[in-house]
Amino acid sequence: MFNKEEFKENAIQIINWIADYFADVENFPVRSEVKYGEIKKMIATQVPEKAEPFDHIFSDFQEKIIPGITHWQSPRYFAYFPANASIPSVFAEFLTAALGVQGMKWITSPAATELEEVVTDWLRKMIGLPDTFSGVIQDTASVATLCAVLAAREKITDFQSNTKGLSFEKIRVYCSDEAHSSVEKAVRIAGIGSENLVKIQVDDECRMIAGDLEKAIHEDLLKDFKPACIVGALGTTGTCAIDPIKKLTQIAKKYNIWLHIDAAFAGTALILPEFRKEISGLKDVDSIVLNPHKWMFTNFDCSTFFVRDSKHLQKTFRLVPHYLQTDSDHEVTDFSNWGIQLGRRFRALKLWFVIRNFGMRGIQEKIRKHIQLAEYFEKKISGSAWFELVVPRNLAVVSFSIKNEFSSSLEELNKKNAELLESINVSGKAYMSHTIVNGKFVLRFVCAQTNTEKQHVDEALQTIFTLVEKQI
Amino acid sequence: MFNKEEFKENAIQIINWIADYFADVENFPVRSEVKYGEIKKMIATQVPEKAEPFDHIFSDFQEKIIPGITHWQSPRYFAYFPANASIPSVFAEFLTAALGVQGMKWITSPAATELEEVVTDWLRKMIGLPDTFSGVIQDTASVATLCAVLAAREKITDFQSNTKGLSFEKIRVYCSDEAHSSVEKAVRIAGIGSENLVKIQVDDECRMIAGDLEKAIHEDLLKDFKPACIVGALGTTGTCAIDPIKKLTQIAKKYNIWLHIDAAFAGTALILPEFRKEISGLKDVDSIVLNPHKWMFTNFDCSTFFVRDSKHLQKTFRLVPHYLQTDSDHEVTDFSNWGIQLGRRFRALKLWFVIRNFGMRGIQEKIRKHIQLAEYFEKKISGSAWFELVVPRNLAVVSFSIKNEFSSSLEELNKKNAELLESINVSGKAYMSHTIVNGKFVLRFVCAQTNTEKQHVDEALQTIFTLVEKQI
Repeated sequence: MFNKEEFKENAIQIINWIADYFADVENFPVRSEVKYGEIKKMIATQVPEKAEPFDHIFSDFQEKIIPGITHWQSPRYFAYFPANASIPSVFAEFLTAALGVQGMKWITSPAATELEEVVTDWLRKMIGLPDTFSGVIQDTASVATLCAVLAAREKITDFQSNTKGLSFEKIRVYCSDEAHSSVEKAVRIAGIGSENLVKIQVDDECRMIAGDLEKAIHEDLLKDFKPACIVGALGTTGTCAIDPIKKLTQIAKKYNIWLHIDAAFAGTALILPEFRKEISGLKDVDSIVLNPHKWMFTNFDCSTFFVRDSKHLQKTFRLVPHYLQTDSDHEVTDFSNWGIQLGRRFRALKLWFVIRNFGMRGIQEKIRKHIQLAEYFEKKISGSAWFELVVPRNLAVVSFSIKNEFSSSLEELNKKNAELLESINVSGKAYMSHTIVNGKFVLRFVCAQTNTEKQHVDEALQTIFTLVEKQI
Repeated sequence: MFNKEEFKENAIQIINWIADYFADVENFPVRSEVKYGEIKKMIATQVPEKAEPFDHIFSDFQEKIIPGITHWQSPRYFAYFPANASIPSVFAEFLTAALGVQGMKWITSPAATELEEVVTDWLRKMIGLPDTFSGVIQDTASVATLCAVLAAREKITDFQSNTKGLSFEKIRVYCSDEAHSSVEKAVRIAGIGSENLVKIQVDDECRMIAGDLEKAIHEDLLKDFKPACIVGALGTTGTCAIDPIKKLTQIAKKYNIWLHIDAAFAGTALILPEFRKEISGLKDVDSIVLNPHKWMFTNFDCSTFFVRDSKHLQKTFRLVPHYLQTDSDHEVTDFSNWGIQLGRRFRALKLWFVIRNFGMRGIQEKIRKHIQLAEYFEKKISGSAWFELVVPRNLAVVSFSIKNEFSSSLEELNKKNAELLESINVSGKAYMSHTIVNGKFVLRFVCAQTNTEKQHVDEALQTIFTLVEKQI
């Protein structure tokens, strides 16, 4: 029997804890500093036979789990890409968990599907895609990109690989050297093979060289290979570089190749009209993924995937066994036919809460502020005695390195950069990550956490400058 | 700035709503009865420009979303398979959302990885797998089965398909006619092609005929095909039939084929020693998936995937780009190398809360009770004037039909069964689903919702008997 009072008592404990956590999160060391195995050692390895009261478990959570948490919600988090939560998204996730609905088919909870149609359409409008595009929420960009690669594979083989397998032709996929690892993973999973993923060189600013792409396609055609898919980046993982999308659309059109755009992080910036102006050609791509769980204040997981012609997705994934057939199947949208998983979480609810609670303008303001803070950070870094930019800032991502003059070799420079990064992270005052550009170890400062303010950037700068001065 | 008081105020509103929902959920019509489009019509299609107060959004949730919700947490839910939530799992999900951590790598939140190692190891012991098996939490069984098929594909091709693609041999996968659709989806995605999925006939009780499997493998070998993977079911989706696992392990061993077991729903019953005794051979399978988000009171998504040799998984999926490389990579577990997605939710927390708050015995009691209730239902159905069992009950799943004598043809019988099912579901008093066995439309009664008690089963019986009497 459900005990209402006990439920409320425990829930209030949790709420108080979360309230304190949100209020204090910036005071935690950002990166957890435990060694591998320390958390496991604290946790009982014996299977608990008897029920334990909630109090015990919750205090264990505070004592044994929290030390092993890296605080992605800290405004001092500047690593990788953000995985931003926000209060409306956290509330929505709580409600989603309580409802425990299954969104695999329309019939299994009509609101889950219909809200997904509505919020993905809102987002489509917000980023300026024409209404020929339809949206679906996937768990991650890895999966969305895999779906794009699979749809492209099916399209180039007249939707025959699904049935006959891949035994009859050499299918080719193209991306830049700087593309996310999920592209190669997708190509492997799809049975295309990573040798058939052609990695096109990038220019000095880490953008795909369109001429080289066309050359590669041309050569492949001469060998009777089948160019199936180009994956362009609207924001690479390393430096947030933006591939020449307009040129990619022209090449894709000319050779009839599926063009997928990985905009997992930077895609959110398309909500800004001033950024949209800089990007042309998006209306002509075949698919694009952007993750509200990165820069749009919607807690993980929530990856929105837009396709220009959803029939291709459905032809790739539709498979309805008799135990799932219902009379309404042909009138409704069943999103499990738009992707890999049958079971689907009700992810639309949090996106609905976030877009309404922030408002489109509220989201725009946040993103503009992040970009301005990154610009401010960029100026301070490039104006300093120690650092130089490796590539110009892209949106909220600043990529920099200790100046060459402080080292006698690239190897030594890389070591210095790596040591500096580690000392920043060990300090607990900021958390950053790195990438490699032309063999150089590069520090990345990603200024896009929901609650980051100027004060946090200033403190990060102070930490960085103090540490580099000590080190050099 | 985070406003603590406002947060708490809104959170308490939500808690009160959830408390009322849990207390009343059995009084809601189980299946939502909206028509396609009704929910969308209620929701604004205009993108909200300005921020809206939380109150508005939350009251819209109650007025416009709830009517479109099918209540999977109702004790009157007997359809498909359960997607059981429970209070500790809902609390854990709330905390997970608030922490907003990313479990892609150990370093990105050590506790997420280490707790995943601990709880999957608990579950391994609970279901009696030897310690040669390692566990990982995936989102869904669809993805876990896809991972198994991919690992099998790589193993049979000496881990070459990942690089070279699938252009050089005909890989074969085997399952029964009654296997879940995710097997065929996996075979398509992997580029093997559904024509290379050999569907083996089942016996009268919907179990794979092992002799036919061996024959099929034998014939394929004569044609120089490459048998790579057998997918056995420990609980088919239709009738919860259990394939002859011991025999499958012998065949798999003899021909050196990867044996994957889909135990998505019924696997939880392995926690009962009395059920484990009936199942032999599990220790010799290569992989097995079971979903705590189905019958183990852990809200969706949480699918545990156990492999006998995790090296195969890692060889299939490991891909670490430079921007993700850290010094600790070779000492730690990075679960993103065990599957498709790079980004990973912190799913271990809810499983930890559930196992501790229920205790292993508490989980056993719940499952035993469900099985007993299903047995009770089975007796009432088979003892009635109107119905007969189509196959014997399997665990908590009863598959039945109106007796043949009430119809002059199979077609008429099917129509009657379908009409009866629809009238049960429209009543709102219970929600059931169907399957097809040998052309017959079969009613499924899955008695496994967290809070189902004898009273709910009695009421379901009464609804069914009243409606069938009216109809016949």
